[in-house]
Amino acid sequence: MLDGDFGWLKEASKRRRYLVGVSGGADSVALLHLLQREGFQRLVVCHLNHGLRRRAASADARFVERLAERLGCEFRGGREDVGQCAEMWGCSVETAGRRARHAFFAECGRKTRCRRLLLAHHADDQAETVLWNLLRGSRGASGMKVEQSLAMAGLSMQISRPLLTVSRARLRSWLESQNLSWREDATNAEPMAVRNRLRNEALPLLEEIAGRDVLSSLQKAAESDAELREIETWAVEQAEVLDPQGRIHIRKLMSLPPALRWSCVFDFLRNHGVQDLGRGVVSRVLEMLVADGSAFLNLPGGGRMRRRQGRMFIE
Amino acid sequence: MLDGDFGWLKEASKRRRYLVGVSGGADSVALLHLLQREGFQRLVVCHLNHGLRRRAASADARFVERLAERLGCEFRGGREDVGQCAEMWGCSVETAGRRARHAFFAECGRKTRCRRLLLAHHADDQAETVLWNLLRGSRGASGMKVEQSLAMAGLSMQISRPLLTVSRARLRSWLESQNLSWREDATNAEPMAVRNRLRNEALPLLEEIAGRDVLSSLQKAAESDAELREIETWAVEQAEVLDPQGRIHIRKLMSLPPALRWSCVFDFLRNHGVQDLGRGVVSRVLEMLVADGSAFLNLPGGGRMRRRQGRMFIE
Repeated sequence: MLDGDFGWLKEASKRRRYLVGVSGGADSVALLHLLQREGFQRLVVCHLNHGLRRRAASADARFVERLAERLGCEFRGGREDVGQCAEMWGCSVETAGRRARHAFFAECGRKTRCRRLLLAHHADDQAETVLWNLLRGSRGASGMKVEQSLAMAGLSMQISRPLLTVSRARLRSWLESQNLSWREDATNAEPMAVRNRLRNEALPLLEEIAGRDVLSSLQKAAESDAELREIETWAVEQAEVLDPQGRIHIRKLMSLPPALRWSCVFDFLRNHGVQDLGRGVVSRVLEMLVADGSAFLNLPGGGRMRRRQGRMFIE
Repeated sequence: MLDGDFGWLKEASKRRRYLVGVSGGADSVALLHLLQREGFQRLVVCHLNHGLRRRAASADARFVERLAERLGCEFRGGREDVGQCAEMWGCSVETAGRRARHAFFAECGRKTRCRRLLLAHHADDQAETVLWNLLRGSRGASGMKVEQSLAMAGLSMQISRPLLTVSRARLRSWLESQNLSWREDATNAEPMAVRNRLRNEALPLLEEIAGRDVLSSLQKAAESDAELREIETWAVEQAEVLDPQGRIHIRKLMSLPPALRWSCVFDFLRNHGVQDLGRGVVSRVLEMLVADGSAFLNLPGGGRMRRRQGRMFIE
């Protein structure tokens, strides 16, 4: 067995049913073998042919189907022309691929009545995600989580990523040491140019400059970020800024540190389904609270924020 | 006036006395001119000759002294052989430089009875700091703060960084547009190789890959991180895990989310002056709380953590 932190693999119930996303590439093939060797008994191998690489893609699908059969797993295959979807939906192939996968996993989930989905994201994917989120200016150094609830095409799925702390290199060398084969270049969709460049240019350069294991540093950053957000969630609950009618009690809100006011307003707006909830909207709501602030604010998506008699609410 | 976010420069009291660290390089020269044009009346220009670049360093010192004179500012110069300090203290030149500057600023602070120090760190410095902290695995995406209290050689100084959101490029082009001169290569100390490479190789590559203003993204990350920590501080206070005798009330601690337990124990240990307070120490203290956890733990620096009758304390 590959050594390392496999808490999830050890602790999860082996008799439960799980969907496993398997592209046929090294990462998901390693995940499947590891699950099987750990004694997971009811795996459903799910493979979506993205229709992007023609003959190679069909060969990937056949490879995954045979592998599932050999390991005694149920197999579910699907096919989507992701290139065409991208044109139709007016989005990137990458985005279309993600949407198509979500729809496919949701379909598998409905048909098998299973809501648990295992994905093969690993430490290199995590490092790219943290770096990319950082570069595009999202809040903090956020990454993927080992456990996550995610709505896929309207179906709430429970996603687990057992390999999130294991590097790609270790997965590959483990596969090789076990004489296990995989399909080179079997990707879920053509990865974004940006992702590829982060992986092939930025991360190696950063590793060389820092002279240390950058994957584990970025993993730590993602963990710290998740911890701080857990604390933030607790703090928002603890702050109790809503009155019995569910309106924001302005004096209570203003008694909090500024950063927490921000989180409380963000939480309030999100719970009221306000769309396009960026930093700007929250800041404008908070500006209503200064001495001569406005009593009204039109929210994106149609609602209106109102301040009256020491309370703030959406009307 | 250079446009941009100069909240600090606008809001600070102009009649107060401030020490300003001026190396003679573009950044600190721009800071000094901006302060003077904004009407700050009692600036004390502080320049430390690090004794590293011989003749050039003496010319830097003369340049800064004359500039101070021309702008009608008090001048305080100092000299330290930082290379020799590094050998003596067995540390890097970079670390020796920082220590020497702290000692020098503390000396200026004592002699002038002024505790306020302005430093010229800008957005590029901030981006390097965030990236470096991330790569070396510190918690979250932390950066420098506009306002910070820092003990320098035993003296508590109030540091402000008015230029933290302004890029190096904008500072330079402003200096040029105003026909103001500075000393090229006047650095506070030879910058670390790592810093140089982050600046000259990593950040330009990341900017190119991301296709956007990476400085402002990293600045945002640092701000988010500072906000989340502000919330963490509030949450630790709110959690009230100490009993009237100042011991950790274990049941209260365990009722909190795991991430907040971690913060509370970290805070407790820090307040008790525990040295070398890394993640490992906090984790080992938390391990005392599992069902068959140990009742004692030796802490780095000599103390002993003890668990007894539902409480945890240092004896």
